[in-house]
Amino acid sequence: MKLVRFGEYGREKPGIIDAQGQIRDLSGVVPDITGATLSSESLSRIRNVNAGTLPLAPSGQRLGACVGQARNFIAIGLNYADHAAETGAPIPAEPIVFNKAPSCIVGPNDDVIIPRGSQKTDWEVELAIVIGEHASYVGANEALDYVAGYCVCNDVSEREFQLERGGTWTKGKGCPTFGPLGPWLVTKDEIRDPQNLSMWLDVNGERMQTGSTTTMIFNVAKIVSYVSHFMILEPGDVITTGTPPGVGMGMKPPRYLKAGDVVSLGIEGLGEQRQRFVAFEEAQPDTSKGH
Amino acid sequence: MKLVRFGEYGREKPGIIDAQGQIRDLSGVVPDITGATLSSESLSRIRNVNAGTLPLAPSGQRLGACVGQARNFIAIGLNYADHAAETGAPIPAEPIVFNKAPSCIVGPNDDVIIPRGSQKTDWEVELAIVIGEHASYVGANEALDYVAGYCVCNDVSEREFQLERGGTWTKGKGCPTFGPLGPWLVTKDEIRDPQNLSMWLDVNGERMQTGSTTTMIFNVAKIVSYVSHFMILEPGDVITTGTPPGVGMGMKPPRYLKAGDVVSLGIEGLGEQRQRFVAFEEAQPDTSKGH
Repeated sequence: MKLVRFGEYGREKPGIIDAQGQIRDLSGVVPDITGATLSSESLSRIRNVNAGTLPLAPSGQRLGACVGQARNFIAIGLNYADHAAETGAPIPAEPIVFNKAPSCIVGPNDDVIIPRGSQKTDWEVELAIVIGEHASYVGANEALDYVAGYCVCNDVSEREFQLERGGTWTKGKGCPTFGPLGPWLVTKDEIRDPQNLSMWLDVNGERMQTGSTTTMIFNVAKIVSYVSHFMILEPGDVITTGTPPGVGMGMKPPRYLKAGDVVSLGIEGLGEQRQRFVAFEEAQPDTSKGH
Repeated sequence: MKLVRFGEYGREKPGIIDAQGQIRDLSGVVPDITGATLSSESLSRIRNVNAGTLPLAPSGQRLGACVGQARNFIAIGLNYADHAAETGAPIPAEPIVFNKAPSCIVGPNDDVIIPRGSQKTDWEVELAIVIGEHASYVGANEALDYVAGYCVCNDVSEREFQLERGGTWTKGKGCPTFGPLGPWLVTKDEIRDPQNLSMWLDVNGERMQTGSTTTMIFNVAKIVSYVSHFMILEPGDVITTGTPPGVGMGMKPPRYLKAGDVVSLGIEGLGEQRQRFVAFEEAQPDTSKGH
């Protein structure tokens, strides 16, 4: 199933993509797409509904983040061997874990705000995992049982804030609008092998990143298992799993985003995103409010 | 006002401490103590109720974390000059920001679980800030307007996970039960000067930490302002502000917690906590579930 959230920022309704690719309104079945609606039991209830009988969403609807009310938005650093190389970092011996502020989550096609004073706003196409069940100390062999599905994430990053302001990477990863998620939350039954998905990212139509989840250092099952040994994962939590080569910071000379740039990105089977990058001063107030 | 949450883990009710120090049930006034109930307007509604007219909570109730449903649990590292010295770290030029998993939040007197395989579980008495209003790019001179109140936090830390497992500090800060908050959320009107509060922590009755918020490197207003320049802060978010000297890691030789140890801690005007540390294998399932 492809689950979506559509409508005005902060007031999204749940939806499902039907066989014709249209959005059907799931409001009569579940109140929203959040951790509470991602259990196997709840997903079965949605699965048993004939999507074609649900009301069509009005056309031209904005898409929200494909999961609402996420509390813990975790990211894995340097998880593609060739991306680690381009940043000059060694291959990590264990997954590098950091956080993006949950308030940075926005829809897949919302404007992304270049933070006030930023000179080094960068892109990262990533496969994100959406947790479906409470997970604590789970083994890698059972870890996928705790996953509800997958989505595209642009792990937008401000490199100066991340790397030159002291301490951990947190400062450059959770700025307002830095976490576009979606378009769809694709339930795991639709993704035969999460470790064999091609992925890409363009800036103003020019291909910057080309990769595949085949080259992850730590795979999805290992990541979920690993993180669950350090913290409880809850339904609706999101783990974004690192990016393949081709980020702006890795170019010679480095290339960063400026107001007016358009970033588009996608992952096989998970759909595409498209964001206009805007200056802080020109940002619309809605997505900068957090939710 | 001193706000509390009382009752069974995950089903806490809101309460308020009356003039006699008893818990009065606030369920008839607000549904819970969460971000949604911490706005100035909502706090005014609570303030206008005569606490003495509310039903008394049954005696012997467990206290839950004093704020529920926190999404972003942020911590500031090395924020006391003398604590930075004991860890061998330089005084930071800017606040060090990291995350504790929101799923680690528990009540002030709940058992704390020593994680599976842990050898270096440590204590840290800290002043925690509870955010009351949406805060983005706020100046230090207005930052306290966005604070609902304060509480005690034991920023429980696993030093091997934090410092020896690669990447950021996240792995050693958010283990299940590592975030006791409370007993009370004390609204800011009751704290004349958050930068002049004495604080202490005992292990098995032996004084380990003695300090005062006077020796913070970055004060509460600066911290709220600073963090708000990197991410949106939302009502109910918690920022714990660093610890004074006397942690186990700083001793020669280092001293870490073992099963059966009892940690008690407190901050002037904010009450006291008391936790029994238990082995992973002996942990009761309730608080290890997250919420």
